Amino acid sequence: MTSARPNPARRVGLWLVGARGSISTCVSYGLAGLRAGLVEPVGMVTQTPPFAALPLASLDQLVVGGHDICTRGLTESAGELVRHRILTSELVTAVSAEAAAYEARIRPGVLDPDDVGVADLHPEAARRGSLAPRDQIAAIQSDLAQFAAENQLDTVVVVNVASTEAHRDPRPYWRSLATLDAALDERAAQPASLIYAYAALDAGHPFVNFTPSVGATPPALRELARARAVPHCGNDGKTGETLVKTVLAPLFVARRLRVLSWQGYNMLGNRDGECLSDPLHRDAKLRSKDEALRQLLGDPSVHTKVGIDFVPSLRDWKTAWDFIHFEGFLGAQMSLQFTWAGSDSALAAPLVIDLALFAELARALGQAGEMTHTASFFKAPIGGGTHDFHVQFQRLVEYAERHAR
Amino acid sequence: MTSARPNPARRVGLWLVGARGSISTCVSYGLAGLRAGLVEPVGMVTQTPPFAALPLASLDQLVVGGHDICTRGLTESAGELVRHRILTSELVTAVSAEAAAYEARIRPGVLDPDDVGVADLHPEAARRGSLAPRDQIAAIQSDLAQFAAENQLDTVVVVNVASTEAHRDPRPYWRSLATLDAALDERAAQPASLIYAYAALDAGHPFVNFTPSVGATPPALRELARARAVPHCGNDGKTGETLVKTVLAPLFVARRLRVLSWQGYNMLGNRDGECLSDPLHRDAKLRSKDEALRQLLGDPSVHTKVGIDFVPSLRDWKTAWDFIHFEGFLGAQMSLQFTWAGSDSALAAPLVIDLALFAELARALGQAGEMTHTASFFKAPIGGGTHDFHVQFQRLVEYAERHAR
Amino acid sequence: MTSARPNPARRVGLWLVGARGSISTCVSYGLAGLRAGLVEPVGMVTQTPPFAALPLASLDQLVVGGHDICTRGLTESAGELVRHRILTSELVTAVSAEAAAYEARIRPGVLDPDDVGVADLHPEAARRGSLAPRDQIAAIQSDLAQFAAENQLDTVVVVNVASTEAHRDPRPYWRSLATLDAALDERAAQPASLIYAYAALDAGHPFVNFTPSVGATPPALRELARARAVPHCGNDGKTGETLVKTVLAPLFVARRLRVLSWQGYNMLGNRDGECLSDPLHRDAKLRSKDEALRQLLGDPSVHTKVGIDFVPSLRDWKTAWDFIHFEGFLGAQMSLQFTWAGSDSALAAPLVIDLALFAELARALGQAGEMTHTASFFKAPIGGGTHDFHVQFQRLVEYAERHAR
Amino acid sequence: MTSARPNPARRVGLWLVGARGSISTCVSYGLAGLRAGLVEPVGMVTQTPPFAALPLASLDQLVVGGHDICTRGLTESAGELVRHRILTSELVTAVSAEAAAYEARIRPGVLDPDDVGVADLHPEAARRGSLAPRDQIAAIQSDLAQFAAENQLDTVVVVNVASTEAHRDPRPYWRSLATLDAALDERAAQPASLIYAYAALDAGHPFVNFTPSVGATPPALRELARARAVPHCGNDGKTGETLVKTVLAPLFVARRLRVLSWQGYNMLGNRDGECLSDPLHRDAKLRSKDEALRQLLGDPSVHTKVGIDFVPSLRDWKTAWDFIHFEGFLGAQMSLQFTWAGSDSALAAPLVIDLALFAELARALGQAGEMTHTASFFKAPIGGGTHDFHVQFQRLVEYAERHAR
Repeated sequence: MTSARPNPARRVGLWLVGARGSISTCVSYGLAGLRAGLVEPVGMVTQTPPFAALPLASLDQLVVGGHDICTRGLTESAGELVRHRILTSELVTAVSAEAAAYEARIRPGVLDPDDVGVADLHPEAARRGSLAPRDQIAAIQSDLAQFAAENQLDTVVVVNVASTEAHRDPRPYWRSLATLDAALDERAAQPASLIYAYAALDAGHPFVNFTPSVGATPPALRELARARAVPHCGNDGKTGETLVKTVLAPLFVARRLRVLSWQGYNMLGNRDGECLSDPLHRDAKLRSKDEALRQLLGDPSVHTKVGIDFVPSLRDWKTAWDFIHFEGFLGAQMSLQFTWAGSDSALAAPLVIDLALFAELARALGQAGEMTHTASFFKAPIGGGTHDFHVQFQRLVEYAERHAR
Repeated sequence: MTSARPNPARRVGLWLVGARGSISTCVSYGLAGLRAGLVEPVGMVTQTPPFAALPLASLDQLVVGGHDICTRGLTESAGELVRHRILTSELVTAVSAEAAAYEARIRPGVLDPDDVGVADLHPEAARRGSLAPRDQIAAIQSDLAQFAAENQLDTVVVVNVASTEAHRDPRPYWRSLATLDAALDERAAQPASLIYAYAALDAGHPFVNFTPSVGATPPALRELARARAVPHCGNDGKTGETLVKTVLAPLFVARRLRVLSWQGYNMLGNRDGECLSDPLHRDAKLRSKDEALRQLLGDPSVHTKVGIDFVPSLRDWKTAWDFIHFEGFLGAQMSLQFTWAGSDSALAAPLVIDLALFAELARALGQAGEMTHTASFFKAPIGGGTHDFHVQFQRLVEYAERHAR
Repeated sequence: MTSARPNPARRVGLWLVGARGSISTCVSYGLAGLRAGLVEPVGMVTQTPPFAALPLASLDQLVVGGHDICTRGLTESAGELVRHRILTSELVTAVSAEAAAYEARIRPGVLDPDDVGVADLHPEAARRGSLAPRDQIAAIQSDLAQFAAENQLDTVVVVNVASTEAHRDPRPYWRSLATLDAALDERAAQPASLIYAYAALDAGHPFVNFTPSVGATPPALRELARARAVPHCGNDGKTGETLVKTVLAPLFVARRLRVLSWQGYNMLGNRDGECLSDPLHRDAKLRSKDEALRQLLGDPSVHTKVGIDFVPSLRDWKTAWDFIHFEGFLGAQMSLQFTWAGSDSALAAPLVIDLALFAELARALGQAGEMTHTASFFKAPIGGGTHDFHVQFQRLVEYAERHAR
Repeated sequence: MTSARPNPARRVGLWLVGARGSISTCVSYGLAGLRAGLVEPVGMVTQTPPFAALPLASLDQLVVGGHDICTRGLTESAGELVRHRILTSELVTAVSAEAAAYEARIRPGVLDPDDVGVADLHPEAARRGSLAPRDQIAAIQSDLAQFAAENQLDTVVVVNVASTEAHRDPRPYWRSLATLDAALDERAAQPASLIYAYAALDAGHPFVNFTPSVGATPPALRELARARAVPHCGNDGKTGETLVKTVLAPLFVARRLRVLSWQGYNMLGNRDGECLSDPLHRDAKLRSKDEALRQLLGDPSVHTKVGIDFVPSLRDWKTAWDFIHFEGFLGAQMSLQFTWAGSDSALAAPLVIDLALFAELARALGQAGEMTHTASFFKAPIGGGTHDFHVQFQRLVEYAERHAR
């Protein structure tokens, strides 16, 4: 709070891991559209009144780049989003020059050893995936340094928006920075998301994990962030069904309406859905979705279920049905059901930009470690705390009040 | 806040206007069941952790009586609720003695001149309806005094749970206590709910308006409450669709998701529904339901609609469908729809008991005028303020913290 | 059945009343797309196996033209449908030449005297609206004759897809051809849809009324069709909620499940919705929607409701929610609810083409009067009969079997 | 069709396998209520106009008995159904004498070797489960003979309404009567439902398999039915979500609307649900539910899913949500979703009585083998044919017309 005023003209880099995916495509075209006045900041938290006085960097100062393991052209990704009715062809045409510039800044990523059968795999990503961990980190850091230098950036924020990784049970060497460093020396450390997080934090770049992958969650990485005095946040963007859940569940608690069962069925058809149709990958996701509900209801006996099904025809349009069976006074049996239908990428993209701005500001203000004020953005906030969306959001507003210009 | 400690053994009367209706039947049987350990305090806000340290009166000290304009036996009302699967026949049998004692405390009410075609109208209620307003007030106050005396009550809280009155545009004489008193002298004042509110407040009894009827809403009555130093609250219990609306709408604002249209369709089949199928009565209800949403979204251009239909087969089971059409980033069109199915009476009854306890405590603490801390209970809180349920509830928790034992 | 074999190479004109509206735009671009192999015949009944052997005209032989009272350009209508995600910009670009040829064949229509406040009104349409009825008929017939001559058409089918007209109670002069002819002589006959129907039938052109407007429904017009030996059908295309209703209702009857209440809420945002938001226009529509259900359930005591609301943000995307409350054995109360979300124009357009083909075939086979075999296409089939979709469709299949090549 | 007239005064036995379960409890109380005029024949197909002239046995002539492997008292089952709001306590009290008489006719069943962990297992059922198959069959036939003799019954119809058995892949010895007889001699035959079917058919009793268990499905049993000239039918009563599916799916085919995905999620909380939460048991059920849809849509590429979850709080109230994603003309993406909420037992019980009457009539008319006219009652009709409900029902009506008095 006693930090110096951030320089209002500072230049910010937004580095997307998963740079050719749907979210990144929406981020890059959307940001170009925002600057050109063709897109409104709908869905962006930072562009609302409570944050007007917060000294966030300007959208005009953002430069976007990223890593990806595949070679699919950005035009192809954009064309797919036009066909699936998320991007308009007008926008794609209007900002094609900026999109090409973004694509030119994409570098081959690091393939995770458990990610098999990737279509359009970039040979260099495969090669990097087979390197020793220290070499992987060095390659990533070199890309980040070059990005910063070429674009005269004051800060680079790394955001992981790659498809969910295969679930891994916690590894013993994740427990501390010392054990992790030892493992890195022994060529043992995984998964890829952890490598990216290490590379970013170690080089002083804020890290945002928008996925349920491991990222900077383990104690070792959190120790690294504190050691290097870098802010970070995650995990798993709260964009749809879980968002609604964490808004509704506190109502039942406040009114002492007894939730008997809460069943949630999710259907999605994009790469994330395909990835999650593999039980190994789905496991990570379901944990964060179900945990929030059980914590909020505070009742270990409540019957809950969260299912995810891959329904290819829905593409990026996530559709979810939740059924809440509850009991009122006198044993009366009641129910609330809702159907959510939203584009996952169009919901995620503005939040990714928001988080980049929040992370950059935290860095400019000299804040380090878990950005607990961003909990409302995540299904499984690092640092824990309540899952109640309104309480989480109130914390963010209070943060903004504390740091207002 | 500096008030004396309330006497923990104080005896409290709960006087229900509309004493033979569904809500009152649930209150009387439910309260008897709670005392007998046959019913759990599900749906009761006062019986949750945030209010454990608040010096509320004990449920054991509550005595219930009331006014009604019809003669339908309580057993008949209870039988209907058993058939409609809200009360169980076990409970009705187990507490029949207490129910009979409650029924013996019901007195004929005051018929509103616009309420025509009431079935089972009590002749005395019709006669009272034709009296001069000052005589109506005296009759009500005499009943309340007798109730207090016979049951050695320290306080009597009057709660209006009668069916919604016909809508009336504001009358000029509602504007101040002086103009109202003049109108009362001239035999002109209406409607019945205002007469009840006057009688209660004038005699020092806290008044709770759980309906959208006029009650103590006009400036004249609010002046009376302050003049007599009596607390009161209202209007229109927030029990179902509007409750969910005021939980969900703030989410769209927080995330800057643009609500394009919010359509709400309500179906109900009880006396309240029948009453609301008359456009004159429905008008009052729709105003409070729609207003909340428009205020929360803060966008005068948003398209909203609230409909109410009388669907007799549903009985007390209110079923509502809301469709929210909204826009996300990049113009993506999304939707959220929900179906609420709940028993209106089983939802309202525990809140009526809660409000009686809160009103009695305010009286014991020497608080007068609008009980703004109870806003979370109402669709149209007297005293105004935000409709955001979570913010309203937070205010109630803060009140409890300030007045904890 | 003893008719001569239709000439397989016959050329067919499809004349659309309401030629610049959404349905017509979908028909013209869709037909061009079908011919170019860019669009599949999804949603087209004639292109399914049961009709493979029916000697229907080929899609390649169809030429489209029409009347409209407004001047809005077809490109504008198409652009709107692209923005609303019904047409793709690829298709619009690919068949622009054919669309322009279609637009060149559009003539100014006849304004109905009750249609006030039309945007972009064509001055000639206004002038034609003020002519004597006989002159209106002559103008229409002249346009049709010119269309047939210029395009060397064997038959022209006139299809009314204009917005719903204001409801009119039946006029005495609609009762017989003699009284109608007298009224036409006296310059009295209305509405516009009846004038179009008269003009078409009188000149020997089959007439299809896809709207709930009057069209050829009155006895006078049906007499005219028989007198001129021309086939016709209507009214009001069964494309969405009513379609689902007439599929589901017979289930309850077959299983003797007692429907207690059937509530249907429709929301739509296109010109049709705007038009129907006017109670005068809505009345015609609601009658045909509710009648089907009451007849199918065969129970005069069942509680039904059909509502239509204009929700501009939905554009052409009709969204409807139906709630069916029913009773099973032992008095058990059950429910079925459904939400339908579909593009009205994309559902209607292929059926319009189907009906043009069926009407042309009936003409070629020498069939005159009501085409009762097309009942499955309509909410209010002229000629009456059951509303049970499956029974209606079975009749169509039997017709196809009888007339198979 | 040339059969003699059935004796109108014939006495019919209805023997329920699973006699203490929810369906059987509803059958026995419901039948008693029907005779006493306390219950209406809601949900009963036989009591509708198309079947009025069919010489079915009278409900007054039905006597009910059955087998069960557990000892739970019928009063307990009935009390549970009262608590779960399916039976009313008034009915339970009014027909208690008839219920007691029914219970006195229940005999211990034959435990299936794969059914482990049954609560309240009757020791005699366990003993019978360990007998050689021939001895099991003899015990069952002896019970049926005694039932017929004691109640002077002309015919006994055996209906299997026990919980779903564990799935078993087809056994080689099921293929013919000869191989089955050999297996029975070798003490090898399973499962229990097959043993019941064998016992019934071998002794000349019609057999109805209302469950997805094996029953009389294998060729060996169908051969036995023909050899003994006994009618039979099954499998798996079509009471809820699948019923709605087989009504809706033909609509999409008739209109050539392309179903892209059809996802069905079922939740239920009764013993059947508990049983199906075991993957081994669920498998049998899911096969019959999914097969119907795929056959109806006739498109091997369509994406379908049927899920069943055990949600204890729902008790007997099956709640299902189906989401149908489909494509219309021009590639427009549409959807239909429905939520079904019904009491499985109250839906099944009247159909069980219907099927007993149809099976008895078939026997009286000398019809043997598969009762293909009852296909509309089943998810997986023995004898195959279309799953289209309306076509199936039409066949039943035609049967009734052929055999009308």
